[in-house]
Amino acid sequence: IMDEDSGVDIMSLNKYSNSSSSSSSSEHDKKTPAKIEHYPKKNAEIISCQYGTNLLLVGIALLLANATALPIVEEKHLLSYITSLMILQLIWMLWYVLLRNRRKNTRTDRDIHVTTAWIRGGLTVLAFISLIMDAFRVGYYVGGHSCVSVVLGVYPVIHAVHTLAQVHFLWFHIKDVIQSLQTFERFGVIHSVFTNLLLWCYGVVSEAEHYMNNRMRRLSNMGFINFTIVDPELLCNCTATTCTLFYKSLSYLFPFCIEYHVIVSAMLFVMWKNIGRTTDLSHKKRLATKTHCLITGPFLGLVALASTIGVMVVYLIHTEQSMETRQTAISIFYIYAIILLTLMCFAGVAGLLIYRVDHKPPDTSKNPSRELDTELLFGSSVGAWLMSWCSIVSVLSTSSNPPYIWMNFTYSLLIVLEKYIQNLFIIESLYRHKEDGKKEDPELPPSPETFSVTPPLPLPYNGIINQAYETPDMACVTSENEQNDRCSRKPVEAPQPTGRDLVEPSNVKKLILKNITVFLVMCNMSLWILPAFGCRPQFDNGLEQEIYGPNKWITVLNFAIPLNLFYRMHSVASLFEVFIEV
Amino acid sequence: IMDEDSGVDIMSLNKYSNSSSSSSSSEHDKKTPAKIEHYPKKNAEIISCQYGTNLLLVGIALLLANATALPIVEEKHLLSYITSLMILQLIWMLWYVLLRNRRKNTRTDRDIHVTTAWIRGGLTVLAFISLIMDAFRVGYYVGGHSCVSVVLGVYPVIHAVHTLAQVHFLWFHIKDVIQSLQTFERFGVIHSVFTNLLLWCYGVVSEAEHYMNNRMRRLSNMGFINFTIVDPELLCNCTATTCTLFYKSLSYLFPFCIEYHVIVSAMLFVMWKNIGRTTDLSHKKRLATKTHCLITGPFLGLVALASTIGVMVVYLIHTEQSMETRQTAISIFYIYAIILLTLMCFAGVAGLLIYRVDHKPPDTSKNPSRELDTELLFGSSVGAWLMSWCSIVSVLSTSSNPPYIWMNFTYSLLIVLEKYIQNLFIIESLYRHKEDGKKEDPELPPSPETFSVTPPLPLPYNGIINQAYETPDMACVTSENEQNDRCSRKPVEAPQPTGRDLVEPSNVKKLILKNITVFLVMCNMSLWILPAFGCRPQFDNGLEQEIYGPNKWITVLNFAIPLNLFYRMHSVASLFEVFIEV
Repeated sequence: IMDEDSGVDIMSLNKYSNSSSSSSSSEHDKKTPAKIEHYPKKNAEIISCQYGTNLLLVGIALLLANATALPIVEEKHLLSYITSLMILQLIWMLWYVLLRNRRKNTRTDRDIHVTTAWIRGGLTVLAFISLIMDAFRVGYYVGGHSCVSVVLGVYPVIHAVHTLAQVHFLWFHIKDVIQSLQTFERFGVIHSVFTNLLLWCYGVVSEAEHYMNNRMRRLSNMGFINFTIVDPELLCNCTATTCTLFYKSLSYLFPFCIEYHVIVSAMLFVMWKNIGRTTDLSHKKRLATKTHCLITGPFLGLVALASTIGVMVVYLIHTEQSMETRQTAISIFYIYAIILLTLMCFAGVAGLLIYRVDHKPPDTSKNPSRELDTELLFGSSVGAWLMSWCSIVSVLSTSSNPPYIWMNFTYSLLIVLEKYIQNLFIIESLYRHKEDGKKEDPELPPSPETFSVTPPLPLPYNGIINQAYETPDMACVTSENEQNDRCSRKPVEAPQPTGRDLVEPSNVKKLILKNITVFLVMCNMSLWILPAFGCRPQFDNGLEQEIYGPNKWITVLNFAIPLNLFYRMHSVASLFEVFIEV
Repeated sequence: IMDEDSGVDIMSLNKYSNSSSSSSSSEHDKKTPAKIEHYPKKNAEIISCQYGTNLLLVGIALLLANATALPIVEEKHLLSYITSLMILQLIWMLWYVLLRNRRKNTRTDRDIHVTTAWIRGGLTVLAFISLIMDAFRVGYYVGGHSCVSVVLGVYPVIHAVHTLAQVHFLWFHIKDVIQSLQTFERFGVIHSVFTNLLLWCYGVVSEAEHYMNNRMRRLSNMGFINFTIVDPELLCNCTATTCTLFYKSLSYLFPFCIEYHVIVSAMLFVMWKNIGRTTDLSHKKRLATKTHCLITGPFLGLVALASTIGVMVVYLIHTEQSMETRQTAISIFYIYAIILLTLMCFAGVAGLLIYRVDHKPPDTSKNPSRELDTELLFGSSVGAWLMSWCSIVSVLSTSSNPPYIWMNFTYSLLIVLEKYIQNLFIIESLYRHKEDGKKEDPELPPSPETFSVTPPLPLPYNGIINQAYETPDMACVTSENEQNDRCSRKPVEAPQPTGRDLVEPSNVKKLILKNITVFLVMCNMSLWILPAFGCRPQFDNGLEQEIYGPNKWITVLNFAIPLNLFYRMHSVASLFEVFIEV
């Protein structure tokens, strides 16, 4: 039966010699088993990813069932599910940390690109705010424990423990490149990823609910609509006077908790992608952040931030009043945002032009963290873009004529343009080679030939792709599955800088780029603050609701606004990285 | 200012020697320019992808605005937009085809993985049905042209031309790996991808609307609800009696048109990913499809298909009648689906077990087409999974007790399980090395050493990653940007098969796998037919609507059902590929 197949690919064995670059440096007798070991990796990836997705989907099904007017699936059911997921994650993290501590003497590979101290610091702050939120929830439960389910008391306690454990994990283990027990660890990590994603979804839905309730209450106070909401605190005879306060304060902390979970899940996802990966041995590169002459960017950025606070206060106060003041508030918001976005567009274009003048080869080394950054930036832009295009369609087709109609149009167009340019700028920045202004340096020997005697990988480091030497000294690394020491090679001694980099043009360019980056960071923070704390003219201007109908438009906003908030947060983090590396 | 930076990465030049495996084979003086040329690729990718996304989002904004009860944005606005996108795509395709014809003498690289003749044949059939649809639309326009916009007449004509041109393009150019004018072509291809995606969205929305209207009409005929729909044909005094007929017939053809556009856009997306890629030179491999002893799978599959038609007819007739017959119809559907899904699960598990017994190294060669297949399978499963988990939550929390409640539960669980297993099976099949049953062949020399003298790439083919020799003879290829001929090396002559592959166990395994695959193909077709032609018990059983509320549940279904239809179609295509390659 098989004799026709057999002649086709008699040479399939030579695939082993070129199927992946990492295998070229290992001995041939080691090759085939390595391949076979490699195989379950793909399977484990799919199985664990499907497991995680289904965890999340169960949660979403519960969330949807809970978000109806008189839900049969109550909040306690949802919270029990989330709590049990968190407990499972806690058990896995405990196991993982204990295992690492027992194996302290065997060194673990680490991926330096996963995160920076800055991001972890920021996350710690967010986690701290989450803890305050948990305290409020406990307070609310204590006040009303006679009539609310016990799950509402257990959830914040577990969430607090979970937050503490997770922050510890982020500081000490997030960069690990797991090599042992890969399949099991893969399930653990993906479980953590999707638990955090579910917590994010829960946060987003709760926040949207709070916002809608507040808005309805405001409108009903103004006499626009007749609205009575059944608040949970009204259903329950709260024994302490503080428990309503606790409940109300929660809503101000939601934005932080939401960002915390989504960023943690992105970081854990990179850890998951890194499992079983062959990494480079490079160490943390020195941060050479210069702050001389860094005036224009921070100054403009601070101005933007300060005026943001002003605009926010004006907006929040005025939208609660009469129709005219409301229209004025919306107009002020649009004018402010148009100016800000125009400046951001110019800054981004200037950055791109500098890159066009200053050719550099791309950094093509493998870096899951960077790839994820790119995809997240791009993916989360979609929310704001959809919102903007809907606004543009509304403006063009509406028959009503509020004063801010063309401001809305300009604002929406600028949002599209600004994200377009900013994404390009950030992604190009991330993909540029770092610190190779020395390429045309006359003191250097023609390095490529020097190193090309061992192409494409330095052979002594077998199995490990050494993609870039970030620092001149090489560490001695013993990974767990390959017990041979690799301390053999010391690279060429780096010549000391001799004042030759006072070449002005390059420095001026770097300075401009740094200023641009700082300015963009602060602008993105401003544009995060505005919607996070309730300035959402898309709800208030009434234009889009007229064209799309309230239900559809609110669905669009509930999809787009959380994505947009994440986009702003994420671009701040990415721009910060750009700032450090320029 | 810069003297601290300068010492950090004095060795950055050596990154060139190991940053990417493809560069190792090229001469060093060629390396740097190649890198710089490479760079705009990343930029062009982002710019074009953002452009395409925004095209689609504008369309979605128009679609959403059009889908309200009394839309201000009318269908003609939406259709004008879609028509102009199609015209742009036509111009680009014309330009592309003319350019290729003028450069006939220069050979173009082709990616053999993009598609097979089977898929293109299937697509041609789907395109033909789309043409019939266009004819119906023209007929409808001719009948009612006095009162409908001229756009409704122009759209089907342009769509027909677009379909013809696109099918021509698919047959003759889809495998091209574009190397010249990359940035411009990238825009052309991505424009085509997103135009097709928008046509898909339009089809999905129209289909959902038709289905909902029909269902409402049916329910109102049965006296359950009071419903009067404003049909377009009633608004317009149709001059021909046939135009209502045309309009009604359209709805039966939607499923085909929808699949056509989504599959075309996936193929074009692979073409986009391939732009500027360094491909392997391998040619179309010989199809060695054996059909001896292929009885069990096709037989069971045909039984499944036949009973599907039966169940469909029973279901569609009985749901229009009284409450009891409706419940019976739903029960019949569930029982049938449970049996089918159980068999599919067993078939998938059997396939996976055979793979576990029969170890093979993974095929790690780069293949954008396969990566996309994996992602699409996985991504489109999400729809059905969400639907299933919602059903499970409903069953567990409902207080009503229809006879099919636990059938619904079992059915939903099996849907989750079946997709889980089938995805694993298909992805593992796609990632297995093809036709290397000869690895342990005693006649072969120890090949790895023979070929490892030129690790990791055969040096003569500089710049082109030759990842796998699929056929023994190498073609002489002159790509447009590298004018040096590469006909130098002839690989080792393949020894002719000598009847040694009558080793029974391997053949039996292959036979079982082939049977399993055929069976799964037919089952997936069955599960495509059922919802595509209106068997959607999720609408009729009332359980989920009770828990989620009609609006939310219909939104979930309108998201999940099109994805699920695509999943079935796509898994049929993937399984067919598996069948050929087992």
